Amino acid sequence: MSQTETNPSFVLEVADEVAGRRQADHAVTPLFLNRWSPRSFADTPVDEETLLTVLEAGRWSPSSNNLQPWRFIVAKTPEQLELFQSFILPGNRAWTDRAPVLLLLASNPLRDNGEPNGAHAFDTGAAWASIALQAQALGLIAHAVGGFDRAKAIETLELPDGLELHAVVALGYRGGLETLDEKFREREAPNGRRPLRESVIEATAKA
Amino acid sequence: MSQTETNPSFVLEVADEVAGRRQADHAVTPLFLNRWSPRSFADTPVDEETLLTVLEAGRWSPSSNNLQPWRFIVAKTPEQLELFQSFILPGNRAWTDRAPVLLLLASNPLRDNGEPNGAHAFDTGAAWASIALQAQALGLIAHAVGGFDRAKAIETLELPDGLELHAVVALGYRGGLETLDEKFREREAPNGRRPLRESVIEATAKA
Repeated sequence: MSQTETNPSFVLEVADEVAGRRQADHAVTPLFLNRWSPRSFADTPVDEETLLTVLEAGRWSPSSNNLQPWRFIVAKTPEQLELFQSFILPGNRAWTDRAPVLLLLASNPLRDNGEPNGAHAFDTGAAWASIALQAQALGLIAHAVGGFDRAKAIETLELPDGLELHAVVALGYRGGLETLDEKFREREAPNGRRPLRESVIEATAKA
Repeated sequence: MSQTETNPSFVLEVADEVAGRRQADHAVTPLFLNRWSPRSFADTPVDEETLLTVLEAGRWSPSSNNLQPWRFIVAKTPEQLELFQSFILPGNRAWTDRAPVLLLLASNPLRDNGEPNGAHAFDTGAAWASIALQAQALGLIAHAVGGFDRAKAIETLELPDGLELHAVVALGYRGGLETLDEKFREREAPNGRRPLRESVIEATAKA
């Protein structure tokens, strides 16, 4: 199986380490349970076609009026990674510095006619989920980080004007616990979710 | 296969109608290409477990600090659907009125401590993608609509204070073209995307 082939077992079977930690209350496709956000990156490079396949999933995401407001700023060379490291907050750099690829997820908050696009962040979040799920389906890991200095990122990178910055995604293959600082080792497990009923509201007319 | 079982062919094989319309430039998992936003809803109800399975995929989405800012407001009874129809704009109602389930995707813009959560819309978009992809994997269709009156939705529904409203999602099974008004019939096909290179920016230091 080449690096860019979907591994059905990553998609259709609940992984052992997940089964012991996460309980689905409804028979969700295992891909959604299997995707979590490890911090332990292996020293394995991500080849160009694999990276493009992960981004391609983002490309096919739904967006309001098909405006595709997302932009993916890619760092993969040592020089590019160093630029990104300059604006990631130190607490995260303890593990993001090991990722072979960093992606800055940004969006254009305007429509082509210059009017605001109220859905740009929401739609870019949809692209992020597609990226994360595609990474999982190919056997990679992706972890989004909100802890970075947005002003410094804009100052550091040659970005088109007016982009809004959402997250830096660390992307790569999974490594062992020995790649992590002690304080992250015990957090290196799939986390839970509050019960679905706390997110679901049955529509009721206002009295 | 029960209604709530993942159909591997919806996930792992490119659908015929999609293959003729969409060209992936990189070998993305077919699920991402197969998911599009039809408007033709069949007169088939969505059972409760199927609906909960679709929402469960949203539940397991990634979010900043695992805050899970998303809220899913569900309309499935005739009375609930009528409430939703009162705030969906008429142009969309031509087809959303046939959907057996409508979901209002909203989010809490604040953290538990009352501080703003800058990632709430982005994270809720991630939940939307998971919902749309899970629907596809189970053989349902989901179409998000931004054209609704947000102030009226808040006025009409008994919502918790301060939620931000993002989209109404029409959810159900696919029907034939005869369910659609003439003007929507020729648009009832998977749409394309701009080339990936127009969304990808290689990081460069500012001169």
